[in-house]
Amino acid sequence: MPQSDTLNRRIVLAARPRGLPTPGDFRLEETAVPTPGEGQVLLRTLHLSLDPYMRQLMDEIAPVYAASVPLGEPMPGGTVNRVAASKHPQFRPGDLVLGNAGWQDYALSDGQDLLPLGEMAQPSLALGGLGMPAFTAYVGLLDIGQPKPGDTVVVAAATGAVGSVVGQIAKLKGARVVGIAGGADKCRYAVETLGFDACLDRHDPEFASRLATACPKGIDVYFENVGGAVFDAVLPLLNIGARVPVCGHIADYNNEKLPSGPNRLPLLMAALLQKRIRMQGFVILDHYGDRFDAFRREMGEWVDAGRVTLREDRVDGLDNAPAALIGLLEGRNFGKRVVHVAEG
Amino acid sequence: MPQSDTLNRRIVLAARPRGLPTPGDFRLEETAVPTPGEGQVLLRTLHLSLDPYMRQLMDEIAPVYAASVPLGEPMPGGTVNRVAASKHPQFRPGDLVLGNAGWQDYALSDGQDLLPLGEMAQPSLALGGLGMPAFTAYVGLLDIGQPKPGDTVVVAAATGAVGSVVGQIAKLKGARVVGIAGGADKCRYAVETLGFDACLDRHDPEFASRLATACPKGIDVYFENVGGAVFDAVLPLLNIGARVPVCGHIADYNNEKLPSGPNRLPLLMAALLQKRIRMQGFVILDHYGDRFDAFRREMGEWVDAGRVTLREDRVDGLDNAPAALIGLLEGRNFGKRVVHVAEG
Repeated sequence: MPQSDTLNRRIVLAARPRGLPTPGDFRLEETAVPTPGEGQVLLRTLHLSLDPYMRQLMDEIAPVYAASVPLGEPMPGGTVNRVAASKHPQFRPGDLVLGNAGWQDYALSDGQDLLPLGEMAQPSLALGGLGMPAFTAYVGLLDIGQPKPGDTVVVAAATGAVGSVVGQIAKLKGARVVGIAGGADKCRYAVETLGFDACLDRHDPEFASRLATACPKGIDVYFENVGGAVFDAVLPLLNIGARVPVCGHIADYNNEKLPSGPNRLPLLMAALLQKRIRMQGFVILDHYGDRFDAFRREMGEWVDAGRVTLREDRVDGLDNAPAALIGLLEGRNFGKRVVHVAEG
Repeated sequence: MPQSDTLNRRIVLAARPRGLPTPGDFRLEETAVPTPGEGQVLLRTLHLSLDPYMRQLMDEIAPVYAASVPLGEPMPGGTVNRVAASKHPQFRPGDLVLGNAGWQDYALSDGQDLLPLGEMAQPSLALGGLGMPAFTAYVGLLDIGQPKPGDTVVVAAATGAVGSVVGQIAKLKGARVVGIAGGADKCRYAVETLGFDACLDRHDPEFASRLATACPKGIDVYFENVGGAVFDAVLPLLNIGARVPVCGHIADYNNEKLPSGPNRLPLLMAALLQKRIRMQGFVILDHYGDRFDAFRREMGEWVDAGRVTLREDRVDGLDNAPAALIGLLEGRNFGKRVVHVAEG
């Protein structure tokens, strides 16, 4: 169903998921297109970003860094928008902006959360390789991971929106990069196209021993996106002085309760101590003020020079967003997953 | 049994403990007093430090930071010694030195691990408040914990050799300090003598809720000495941006296997991420080069000015060392535990 000028399609949270979300946890509604008040902008959605953090906002008790989605309200999400109408002095109809319209065709904004994009050849990149996920990779790897030439950097979800950029920046910094991905095709892409030194399939029954073989000098930086069994395999390989930026742990997001035992926490505590490991969580929202300009300049140069390759996993149509998010949580994306809601 | 001029009593590791060590894991032997060769020093032990890390060295697979004790070899340990004989140009008989003679009356050294102490009113302080444990507190709290005025700092094993100094330095830096200790008498001492703002008995069935009540603004720095149930109670109270120096986790040292489930590791991963927590293990041996002089100067001033109170938990007689270490691992020390092997 194409975008309308008069109807606003929106996908709301219909029920709180138990474990992996199902299509029934979402509901498509149609409302009138809202009218901007004084100082407001009416946004029309072109592209919608899908990201793992969205799963966490679907739970009643949301993470500290963002509020839980109320039942019956539209799913939130970063978007690329055209300004459809404006009563705001800084925005004009037709402007291309980065916004937070969420899972809907139209939304109002007071302008404070909007970033003018100018014109871009591929505006959806503002949601991936030139936007939040790549910025997450940049800050987490460089500020917390601090890779040095010759270090071994391991990154899970290696062909995803964040992991693919982590690995490529680590290569630019002179590190040896070992990816972890789900499936042989993703692993081949990580090595042949992204230039990783090795990439291992986490579904392989011999995954843990293959990871050890691929990291003969141990692991100096582990960029944590995944948690679960992947982290368990990484932990014994961490070197003295290793750094572990904690960006996500998608393996746990759909767990309704803690996994059964044994309790592995003492094992982590022992490793942190004996190996002087630094583990540090970060939330990218904290870093826009002081790091975003540096990221945009440097990443723009790398992309323009062909030193960083970006892959978009395109989904067409807003009504396909629920299934696309469910697939993302199952690792069925291949690159940065973006819903193309409308062109123009 | 007093120290002899001709016999060297030494306590060796007789068996690898299963769980908490027992007296049968140690054996007292008598050998001849060794004779120093060219460039060597003969040390006579006055005071022997007992520290939780010793338990870890008794296992076959030792931590990365120090070698496992071979069966039949003397237990290692920091000591205050008199030089009994010297064929080393820099040491003369009668010199008071800090050494690593271990659990025995006499030992040889090539001088490289010796620190001249000059004369001290209370030489055993070199093993506690002016030595390794307090240095551990200083580096872990200031370099990793980085307490700011008004922060809430929580420290477990609050009246122990490390914890008592952590809390007092944190007070000097303007933090609110909440201790955790085993027993009402230790808690009273932490508040009344050490000046902590509160101290909670970890044996209290309501411990976790009392900790929450004692930290109404959450926890900004948790100095980890203990692990286990204490860490479980701390974790939900950690604030955004909290720092967790990991210095030890004594609750786990005598576990023969991982505790039963559920596996709490995902809970830690979620907290690290959502609250942007930094957890960092450290081993004090790494820091002598660049931090020890600052520690010695500053700590010496604090002790001389009465701003830091030190309590020694004195045990008399080398033969009591095994029971004293076992008690230390059970939390039955009250202050820095030192074996007074001989006076002089």
